[in-house]
Amino acid sequence: MSESLQVLLAAVAAGELSPEAALERIQNYQIVGNFARIDHRRSDRTGFPEVVYGASKTPEQIAQILLAMRAKHPLVMATRIESEVYDWLKQRLPELHYYPMARICTLPCYPKPRKGTIGVLCAGTSDLPVGEEAAVTAELCGFTVLRLWDVGVAGIHRLLNNRDVLARADVLIAIAGMEGALPSVVAGLVDCPVVAVPTSVGYGASFNGLAPLLTMLNSCAPGIGVVNIDNGFGGAILAGQILRTAERLR
Amino acid sequence: MSESLQVLLAAVAAGELSPEAALERIQNYQIVGNFARIDHRRSDRTGFPEVVYGASKTPEQIAQILLAMRAKHPLVMATRIESEVYDWLKQRLPELHYYPMARICTLPCYPKPRKGTIGVLCAGTSDLPVGEEAAVTAELCGFTVLRLWDVGVAGIHRLLNNRDVLARADVLIAIAGMEGALPSVVAGLVDCPVVAVPTSVGYGASFNGLAPLLTMLNSCAPGIGVVNIDNGFGGAILAGQILRTAERLR
Amino acid sequence: MSESLQVLLAAVAAGELSPEAALERIQNYQIVGNFARIDHRRSDRTGFPEVVYGASKTPEQIAQILLAMRAKHPLVMATRIESEVYDWLKQRLPELHYYPMARICTLPCYPKPRKGTIGVLCAGTSDLPVGEEAAVTAELCGFTVLRLWDVGVAGIHRLLNNRDVLARADVLIAIAGMEGALPSVVAGLVDCPVVAVPTSVGYGASFNGLAPLLTMLNSCAPGIGVVNIDNGFGGAILAGQILRTAERLR
Amino acid sequence: MSESLQVLLAAVAAGELSPEAALERIQNYQIVGNFARIDHRRSDRTGFPEVVYGASKTPEQIAQILLAMRAKHPLVMATRIESEVYDWLKQRLPELHYYPMARICTLPCYPKPRKGTIGVLCAGTSDLPVGEEAAVTAELCGFTVLRLWDVGVAGIHRLLNNRDVLARADVLIAIAGMEGALPSVVAGLVDCPVVAVPTSVGYGASFNGLAPLLTMLNSCAPGIGVVNIDNGFGGAILAGQILRTAERLR
Amino acid sequence: MSESLQVLLAAVAAGELSPEAALERIQNYQIVGNFARIDHRRSDRTGFPEVVYGASKTPEQIAQILLAMRAKHPLVMATRIESEVYDWLKQRLPELHYYPMARICTLPCYPKPRKGTIGVLCAGTSDLPVGEEAAVTAELCGFTVLRLWDVGVAGIHRLLNNRDVLARADVLIAIAGMEGALPSVVAGLVDCPVVAVPTSVGYGASFNGLAPLLTMLNSCAPGIGVVNIDNGFGGAILAGQILRTAERLR
Amino acid sequence: MSESLQVLLAAVAAGELSPEAALERIQNYQIVGNFARIDHRRSDRTGFPEVVYGASKTPEQIAQILLAMRAKHPLVMATRIESEVYDWLKQRLPELHYYPMARICTLPCYPKPRKGTIGVLCAGTSDLPVGEEAAVTAELCGFTVLRLWDVGVAGIHRLLNNRDVLARADVLIAIAGMEGALPSVVAGLVDCPVVAVPTSVGYGASFNGLAPLLTMLNSCAPGIGVVNIDNGFGGAILAGQILRTAERLR
Amino acid sequence: MSESLQVLLAAVAAGELSPEAALERIQNYQIVGNFARIDHRRSDRTGFPEVVYGASKTPEQIAQILLAMRAKHPLVMATRIESEVYDWLKQRLPELHYYPMARICTLPCYPKPRKGTIGVLCAGTSDLPVGEEAAVTAELCGFTVLRLWDVGVAGIHRLLNNRDVLARADVLIAIAGMEGALPSVVAGLVDCPVVAVPTSVGYGASFNGLAPLLTMLNSCAPGIGVVNIDNGFGGAILAGQILRTAERLR
Amino acid sequence: MSESLQVLLAAVAAGELSPEAALERIQNYQIVGNFARIDHRRSDRTGFPEVVYGASKTPEQIAQILLAMRAKHPLVMATRIESEVYDWLKQRLPELHYYPMARICTLPCYPKPRKGTIGVLCAGTSDLPVGEEAAVTAELCGFTVLRLWDVGVAGIHRLLNNRDVLARADVLIAIAGMEGALPSVVAGLVDCPVVAVPTSVGYGASFNGLAPLLTMLNSCAPGIGVVNIDNGFGGAILAGQILRTAERLR
Repeated sequence: MSESLQVLLAAVAAGELSPEAALERIQNYQIVGNFARIDHRRSDRTGFPEVVYGASKTPEQIAQILLAMRAKHPLVMATRIESEVYDWLKQRLPELHYYPMARICTLPCYPKPRKGTIGVLCAGTSDLPVGEEAAVTAELCGFTVLRLWDVGVAGIHRLLNNRDVLARADVLIAIAGMEGALPSVVAGLVDCPVVAVPTSVGYGASFNGLAPLLTMLNSCAPGIGVVNIDNGFGGAILAGQILRTAERLR
Repeated sequence: MSESLQVLLAAVAAGELSPEAALERIQNYQIVGNFARIDHRRSDRTGFPEVVYGASKTPEQIAQILLAMRAKHPLVMATRIESEVYDWLKQRLPELHYYPMARICTLPCYPKPRKGTIGVLCAGTSDLPVGEEAAVTAELCGFTVLRLWDVGVAGIHRLLNNRDVLARADVLIAIAGMEGALPSVVAGLVDCPVVAVPTSVGYGASFNGLAPLLTMLNSCAPGIGVVNIDNGFGGAILAGQILRTAERLR
Repeated sequence: MSESLQVLLAAVAAGELSPEAALERIQNYQIVGNFARIDHRRSDRTGFPEVVYGASKTPEQIAQILLAMRAKHPLVMATRIESEVYDWLKQRLPELHYYPMARICTLPCYPKPRKGTIGVLCAGTSDLPVGEEAAVTAELCGFTVLRLWDVGVAGIHRLLNNRDVLARADVLIAIAGMEGALPSVVAGLVDCPVVAVPTSVGYGASFNGLAPLLTMLNSCAPGIGVVNIDNGFGGAILAGQILRTAERLR
Repeated sequence: MSESLQVLLAAVAAGELSPEAALERIQNYQIVGNFARIDHRRSDRTGFPEVVYGASKTPEQIAQILLAMRAKHPLVMATRIESEVYDWLKQRLPELHYYPMARICTLPCYPKPRKGTIGVLCAGTSDLPVGEEAAVTAELCGFTVLRLWDVGVAGIHRLLNNRDVLARADVLIAIAGMEGALPSVVAGLVDCPVVAVPTSVGYGASFNGLAPLLTMLNSCAPGIGVVNIDNGFGGAILAGQILRTAERLR
Repeated sequence: MSESLQVLLAAVAAGELSPEAALERIQNYQIVGNFARIDHRRSDRTGFPEVVYGASKTPEQIAQILLAMRAKHPLVMATRIESEVYDWLKQRLPELHYYPMARICTLPCYPKPRKGTIGVLCAGTSDLPVGEEAAVTAELCGFTVLRLWDVGVAGIHRLLNNRDVLARADVLIAIAGMEGALPSVVAGLVDCPVVAVPTSVGYGASFNGLAPLLTMLNSCAPGIGVVNIDNGFGGAILAGQILRTAERLR
Repeated sequence: MSESLQVLLAAVAAGELSPEAALERIQNYQIVGNFARIDHRRSDRTGFPEVVYGASKTPEQIAQILLAMRAKHPLVMATRIESEVYDWLKQRLPELHYYPMARICTLPCYPKPRKGTIGVLCAGTSDLPVGEEAAVTAELCGFTVLRLWDVGVAGIHRLLNNRDVLARADVLIAIAGMEGALPSVVAGLVDCPVVAVPTSVGYGASFNGLAPLLTMLNSCAPGIGVVNIDNGFGGAILAGQILRTAERLR
Repeated sequence: MSESLQVLLAAVAAGELSPEAALERIQNYQIVGNFARIDHRRSDRTGFPEVVYGASKTPEQIAQILLAMRAKHPLVMATRIESEVYDWLKQRLPELHYYPMARICTLPCYPKPRKGTIGVLCAGTSDLPVGEEAAVTAELCGFTVLRLWDVGVAGIHRLLNNRDVLARADVLIAIAGMEGALPSVVAGLVDCPVVAVPTSVGYGASFNGLAPLLTMLNSCAPGIGVVNIDNGFGGAILAGQILRTAERLR
Repeated sequence: MSESLQVLLAAVAAGELSPEAALERIQNYQIVGNFARIDHRRSDRTGFPEVVYGASKTPEQIAQILLAMRAKHPLVMATRIESEVYDWLKQRLPELHYYPMARICTLPCYPKPRKGTIGVLCAGTSDLPVGEEAAVTAELCGFTVLRLWDVGVAGIHRLLNNRDVLARADVLIAIAGMEGALPSVVAGLVDCPVVAVPTSVGYGASFNGLAPLLTMLNSCAPGIGVVNIDNGFGGAILAGQILRTAERLR
């Protein structure tokens, strides 16, 4: 937060700011439909707007939150929207756009291009829904995205032969189910940060993604930050946060 | 890797590079004492030199690897060195320096200052060994470090009153045992990436760090990358990798 | 139990109580439909009536138990009643009332107001079903309830700006999925007991609520009592028990 | 916190409070020896002073924190102090008192008696260290304590014959290892809140307290709040918090 | 097995038994439909016939196995038969009988009464399907069964008031979900073996029966033998085996 | 319990029993040294005397409990007594006898022979401490014991060649670490109940006995009752309880 | 890979191979439909062609990959194809053949017979889908397969009586759910490698195959290699790899 | 077993073999010191002699077993022998040889060379004890061993540059702790079976080897058989079993 508490208090003391206004500065959220509290200043504060997590919400709740956000945000998006839910929402918000593989929907937006390239890698075809969730999120935030699908370590040459993609990215998102070894191998090849996303794809002893999660946390290659299972969105935001830091550091 | 395979092959074809030299370009490691293979070019490739992980190695092995690295690396360091092991190593390498709280030892080095500030936060006093491992590693890599100890969420004002520290950092390392909520709270307050390090400090239901690990992976605040339990070193390298990317991106 | 065994035995010895009556005093339950044993004196003994746990019971069983309880209890309620089950029950018990979000149904009742205010906090909109189960249960028991939804720690100001709600409550129920950090933060801000309810809402590494459960058990802030995953009902009864103690202690 | 942010801001605006003083009001902690941040106003804020958790701290750190707290707190105590650590601390703080079974040490203090009685129950003799940690903590906070040791459910009459103890307590702390069934049985007998503390005592399939922890969380008897494994201190603070609420509610 | 290998070999050597007949003595199973091997002599060897475990088998497979067993076994039964599967089987085997609550079906049989009484206890109404699976199995094996439903420990008097049932049983099967404390309490009251069956009934932290399973394994009351989660059938066979031993021991 | 509550109450009503005496009938335990409550009538009630579980108790506590029991019990024994603890106890109780492999100590006793033979089987030599704990306990209770060591399933003929031992036992205790398959195989060969005891012996993926515990619970052979990891004592008491039932059933 | 990097580089240096051709040698995969990268030379490199894992892929993706593989591979197969998916694929690829029990489909192929016999053993009828997946895969690779169904250890004679099958196999695949003891027993009887496949068949404490998985990993019989839960395909490929080594070793 | 039961029975019937001799054929084990049963014919039956697992055995037991085996076995070895135990054994068996890194000791033996080469790969220096246990075991069985240490995937070129070693091996043992990705990468490069051995080396989230164990079981590269954590011995026997099959298959 750019305004520290100290600054606010000094402004109040100096009579430059009323106590009410000071309070409002901090209280920037909007109550929606008695069930949500939209954080309109998250964008200022953390660099990315609040996004609607569609799972475990009713279509009605999602619609109301999207409508409330539309007035104030340049980017309004929701994740984990199954196609039937989209069909329902579409009735209420005809301008809503849907990315079926990524299960993301957005109101029309024109993301301002941001500096930096994010490489999104998937170990297998079955990991694509997570990969697309990451890639679409990153694109909606304005970053350039390079996709590289089906480059799991069982055929390591598929990865080694695409080193140019690795080289062009400023940050990599490596997505893998099963044994989840892709981030380890990638992190040993590049000199940029690697965001690791485990997926729940695999046979029984994957235990719904526990196996690749542990693999990624235990990687012998440093420079890897792990996010939650199947959380392509979170991976993209972390990658974006890294690039924003780069922008700011200049 | 800056030289792609394609470039190497072209150089060989053009007679500009012998096959032997091409091989050597890739084969940059040194075999030590029949038990280790030092990766001398990791620094070029991934941005940070190979570091000796002291746990599960004999003092003799550690000493031989340090000696082998001394010839070729500007920074030679080992982690997880207990004080008795240091006393033993000191006999063989009298110039070895020791950071007792961080359990790190190094050969004399003069880290080249690098751009960027890393804030290292510990939730409790008991997390300090992990915090110091992260802070010393970051300093040895040339980054500016801001330490902020004992700012766990049970007394949230201790954190809120130090927002200036949060604001000055380009990347934050948030370290916590017990319930591990610090990274979640921090990530909601800042607009830079947060590296989360769970520790094994806590009562029984922490299950040696499993509890804070899960907390950090499930954070509702995006922009958090998680590393292994008690892995302060890994947290520092990820933070450093983020800053190097920022530098390069300029 | 107000009558101790000793008192009963003395009364029997004094001829004031027949052995049969003494037995009956203890044997206060009613056998229903060959599958249930309703504990009619639980209200006297533990302060709250027995409530029908609807999950894993057939609608027929639920209906019979509700009917048996109707004769003897001021408050007759059932939890975990899905809307289709309610529709079925409604045929048999037309006066049955349903709280759809809370999945609770009751026979008409007029709860006697009890002293004490319970604040019910939800970290996210997705936690509302659990939050409503807690709030409706508390209201049916006669307590004043303050609801505060969507105040998760990722936007800590949403919570801090509602400190007046926290201040007005005599006991708080903090409900959260994902990383479950809300109770820790809340318990550091207030001087009343906090009942923590983990929910199963979240991405894969939540492992159906294991992550927030462990977070809450490991909280570095003392004064937190944890109940089962998604158990809003249990949270409300514990909060109510705390307030009843207060009433009695006067 | 009794002073809300709004009040503080109004006072600053009215010139009644300087910004510096306002800041200080919130910033009530003291930095000790570069590793700790003592929260001197926790007592005001949450009802109980900050207590030193001795595990994972060096004796030197514990001594410095105790000394820093001595100046400002009526009650200065540390938990998880092994007898050798106490012997070391005794040299530095000769007036330090030690409760060996509870592994607690305190500076001389005269707890102001508080209203309310806490019953502390242990299932087995092996649970006594946890039981004493709870009982001594509660006594140091000023509450009346009733101890009832070795009343596990395998010989249920040992418990049933002590119902008078149960009846005299305003809140109960039920401590058990192995299968941890004691709180379930107790909660069915009483009409006051039950704080459940699992212990790590038991055969292999206890998995260091996981078994009784799960038992207590899954109790079919409502009105139970669970704390961490072996956390007698936390159990006592929760019980104390419940009684303070009761006092305040009058 | 009553005939030892030694006896068989001696009989072969003495010419009293041909090698073929000796082989056949051991090879008493029948291959059915290329997918099953019915163990016709299990009854002789272990005291109970092989029973068809219906889960994960196709209705066709179940029907064929039942038909094959019909010829040679006095008791032909299948467990885990959902009602739709029963409807299908009924077409092929019109004489098939179904116990809907127990999900067991049998061909007509007239169990020979066996000495001994088995008490089957359920903690809650939701545990009835497991309880009936145990009770029906025991009855089909010829034992006398006493059912005692809904006697969980939250209202311990419901159990204590039925001590006569406990006293009349020669072996008890105690079935419980949630915290699973019933067997511990029961085993402390009786002097006969207790077979403990955990069920998957409960809130989230039951983890599908893991919680009561651990409770039962860690019971502080000895004399308890635990079987698999929801395995009422297995509980009945163990109880039956205990009674058969008793019969034989006379 | 042979005297039911009803009988007691009737006797009190008839003036045949004073209330005090009735109370005493139930209150048959003795408080020892402020930390234990010896259940002197457990022997009458459950068939076996209370036994001192030595782990997690101080030698002083163990000595006091043994002394208190000596006066009233024909059999006084303690389990999990390491040899150093025995040496200490021996000073206080010179007549104490020690079984080093079983880690059991007893005061001199002359067990009354009981009907029934218990076969104790160990899969490997490393399981012997658990095997001896079971065997010695069973012998102290008066049963005949047949020991069969090192008959794991990797060399199945070692078991098959000792079928005579299996045939002579009325109940079997099968003890195994590693994969714990012994009880499954044994239960398929015999027609008596099998008590299964998993041990913590094995390589890493045994997870301290979790692997054999799960194996035994999931056995496809019915008639197996499982007890806690390394709990040879519990296995013996269950086996003894089974034989007592047999005796009584006659 | 038969051509080492050194050989390739030498050939390039000698002008015998263009850099482009060298690259192509390594880059032997084909990009399909923007979601897959078929590894056409896996057959040369690892001995078995890449196979389509049907789970988590759309029918459209499966069809496109099969079509792309058809051109270049003698054997084109897909696993985990449910019958509805097959019906859909059949429209697009009318020559597709389906093995319903094994859930495998293939394009017409004429496997070249390979030396070696694989014995496939299933413990129970419920394990057949996994058993058939293994058997069909092995047959499609050209090996002779011996099937032996329903030979679980609860009736050990069913296995012992088929030792001739064990003796004729060069490698065995032992498949079991529940307690998974089959591989241990088998490995003690034979002198060939045993591939162990745990299945998810069983009661609750199987935890979806965790129990037999741990059993197999902890087997006291050496010579067992374990693969993933329900992974019949993987078991067959490992068995095939073993036989190919044998062939090559000659 | 080369002699089937049928053959034995026929021989007995023909009078060519006495029943006693037939029994002895099967009963080939020797009872040692009342705690072990040495399986002298395991070598004939499974191809490798029984080996003493030193962990959890007393030195006295180990010595007696070694002495008993000495008479009948060409190879007598014990694993998991710590150096102090070896010093003790050396007194009793002066000719005993010790491999300190592998923690193996043997009586003098002259292994007959066997056909086939085993490549043993370790990911890190810390994995060497497991690697040497595998390598020494394989050498004692007569196989040629190629060691390749410190070739973890973080520096993939260390592995790729040693492809000649991979190419020369007939079977590979890939050993790794931390994330355990080595076997996956290796199996994608070679056409021989890979035996995967997870180790317990790593940071906290390795959970003592659980992480690499799951990684290896979930490998996307087929042809991998997994053994227990840290079980270098088991890995070598499986590799040896594979090569023996190859020998036999010729």
